[in-house]
Amino acid sequence: MVKSLTTADRFSPADIPSSGLAARIGSSAIRDLLALTERPDVLSLAGGMPSPASFPVDAIALAAATILDQEGPDALQYAPTEGFAPLRSWIAARHPVTADPDQVLITNGSQQALELAARVASGPGDAVVMSDPGYIGAIQAFRSAGVELVGIPGDRGGLRVDLLADRLAGGLRPRLVYVVANFDNPTGATLTAERRHELARLADRYGFVILDDDPYGQLRWAGEAPAPLATLTDRVVTLGTTSKVLSPGLRVGWAVGPRTLVRELAVVKQSADLHTSSLSQRIAHEVLTRPGFLEHHLDRLRDSYKRHGRALAEALRCHLGGRLTFEEPDGGMFIWGRLREGGDASVLLPMAVERGVAFVPGAAFQVGAGPDHRSWLRLSFATAEAADLGEAARRLARAVASMEADVLELGPG
Amino acid sequence: MVKSLTTADRFSPADIPSSGLAARIGSSAIRDLLALTERPDVLSLAGGMPSPASFPVDAIALAAATILDQEGPDALQYAPTEGFAPLRSWIAARHPVTADPDQVLITNGSQQALELAARVASGPGDAVVMSDPGYIGAIQAFRSAGVELVGIPGDRGGLRVDLLADRLAGGLRPRLVYVVANFDNPTGATLTAERRHELARLADRYGFVILDDDPYGQLRWAGEAPAPLATLTDRVVTLGTTSKVLSPGLRVGWAVGPRTLVRELAVVKQSADLHTSSLSQRIAHEVLTRPGFLEHHLDRLRDSYKRHGRALAEALRCHLGGRLTFEEPDGGMFIWGRLREGGDASVLLPMAVERGVAFVPGAAFQVGAGPDHRSWLRLSFATAEAADLGEAARRLARAVASMEADVLELGPG
Repeated sequence: MVKSLTTADRFSPADIPSSGLAARIGSSAIRDLLALTERPDVLSLAGGMPSPASFPVDAIALAAATILDQEGPDALQYAPTEGFAPLRSWIAARHPVTADPDQVLITNGSQQALELAARVASGPGDAVVMSDPGYIGAIQAFRSAGVELVGIPGDRGGLRVDLLADRLAGGLRPRLVYVVANFDNPTGATLTAERRHELARLADRYGFVILDDDPYGQLRWAGEAPAPLATLTDRVVTLGTTSKVLSPGLRVGWAVGPRTLVRELAVVKQSADLHTSSLSQRIAHEVLTRPGFLEHHLDRLRDSYKRHGRALAEALRCHLGGRLTFEEPDGGMFIWGRLREGGDASVLLPMAVERGVAFVPGAAFQVGAGPDHRSWLRLSFATAEAADLGEAARRLARAVASMEADVLELGPG
Repeated sequence: MVKSLTTADRFSPADIPSSGLAARIGSSAIRDLLALTERPDVLSLAGGMPSPASFPVDAIALAAATILDQEGPDALQYAPTEGFAPLRSWIAARHPVTADPDQVLITNGSQQALELAARVASGPGDAVVMSDPGYIGAIQAFRSAGVELVGIPGDRGGLRVDLLADRLAGGLRPRLVYVVANFDNPTGATLTAERRHELARLADRYGFVILDDDPYGQLRWAGEAPAPLATLTDRVVTLGTTSKVLSPGLRVGWAVGPRTLVRELAVVKQSADLHTSSLSQRIAHEVLTRPGFLEHHLDRLRDSYKRHGRALAEALRCHLGGRLTFEEPDGGMFIWGRLREGGDASVLLPMAVERGVAFVPGAAFQVGAGPDHRSWLRLSFATAEAADLGEAARRLARAVASMEADVLELGPG
């Protein structure tokens, strides 16, 4: 091969054509955070990554071997954009309301379903609503689609649907309302039953589609789950994923929704990447439908996350006391905690990393120009070993104490 | 679970918000074609699918088992958007000019790299050039990005760079020029050495980026390969894939290009789907780097495609004679043939399917308002069994004879 040139930036970067799309998406916060979590000396409560100890490695290895042995090349060929038919049927059958397989599109994790929905159901300049603070990946996907992103405050009961109703009455006409109705990221909040009914009523009245992103719904270990939004109105696209119940690395997620919209999602997915890995889809299907596997696996998973969640909550109460307020979770992967008056989690972060613990400061989840989240922090109890959560809380407490001492020292002037 | 509603389209489809993106992408030609090829009684020369007999199933099964055994959960966790580091290094090292791993982005097949590049390097209304006829997936990706797609005619020497030069002199200022420089889809043409030098010179002069999509370059069994475009100018993004050398179902492709642009591609990919399957990437890396595997595998692949290509060419000459003109290929997967004066491949297709053979009519590859391709057809020799290619040509000959008889019968009036 000729090695006469290098592909290095010989010409000026300013010289390279750019649509400005990457700049519009902006924040590489998730990537910077992933980098932080990779330092071996840091106990990370930052990543939204499921516990690697929970991955059914043996079942996945057995599934891969069985599929390649029995199906051979068929498992490795180009495949329909819509997804592997038996997996679509399985997802349709588990949907909380009657759904046909052709209402299911398989995607590369639910992130792709979210990004496709953002581009298909809404376009540049259209209003899209999400709760503030909100999921960073959703903020990026909506910025990428060029929509006008409208943040509506959320609280312990999820999106403040009453505030949304006010905005709608005032003339706001969103194409989409995005929610993580079960164990929201970052707040851990679950949308109350009453708010779900009201949101569904508003969708029917104002004609928007609810994008219900549900990666965490199956991780409930206490309390009663309110009715899924899809049971309350037809105007719902539900996003699901194997990332939190099997493995994120397989990149198998899905969207279930009205036929017309799912067909449009498939057209755009075809242009985006033809289809999702045939092998990943078959592995997911094989493992998920293995007799007795899923319920047993979910039981173990919930039990493990419950122990993690309770251990972190206990350790935070013990080591931080009134310095951090939070509600103990009933499921999901996150504790959303608030520092005392004046505390700034973005100031705290480098002090925490110095002491060997990481988290995500609230500012990273800011959607719009509403109230800021600087005093909040998102603590994930999913990834770290249970045995390390106590030490992580101790390190965090030392960092908070140090930050508060600094504030006192610098004083009010 | 509550089953009180159905997610069927109770409300009118006209009621569902839509950005019109799917309608803009339009043609579901690829999907309709894939459907045709699935009829068991049809010998398909339509699909652009590699030979399933060539997939290294055993090597892939061994790789999956080894990876899951040795790396366990690490192979199944969330991973960096840019891709699996050892695979990026391997790709950088094989690039025809010196490249660093950070100039490589791993994508879900090269289709995703193409779609990301379409959105990142160009935006709505920007001019993008490709040869006409051209790859359907590229047409869709560029329509999806909302660019002004400019078709420049191609011939047996690939894109007519002289015509591009005229258009540039006349004021055309494209952001991107897309080429499949080796064994183009659908024409099978390879861009001549002279045209490559001229295209590189024009890129440097007018400041556009060349998007060199290279799925077929390694499938050359005769003749000499001209110098890769990346050796002639820095303004090149080269797209590669494992789809034609290992397996399309893994969905592992890549882009190699200037750092700044690759960084922007990664930002948009993160929002699009976080990252490509960790397991697929590791499997591809494990198989590709297995000592002695790749060169041996490529030799067998080229030998097999040569036999297929020559068998189909011979059978077409034998059964169709002067009714179809084409050049015998030196590589790739396609024969691009032309019917006699007045022949229309879109009219021929249903008659051919009726007789048990399928192909893609030239009209499917139309890029712009230039000369139409109705008398052309794309015949893939890659997917069908070698033993079936003779029968496929016989069936095609019967369909052509029947079409020509119809034309005679209907007469000129």
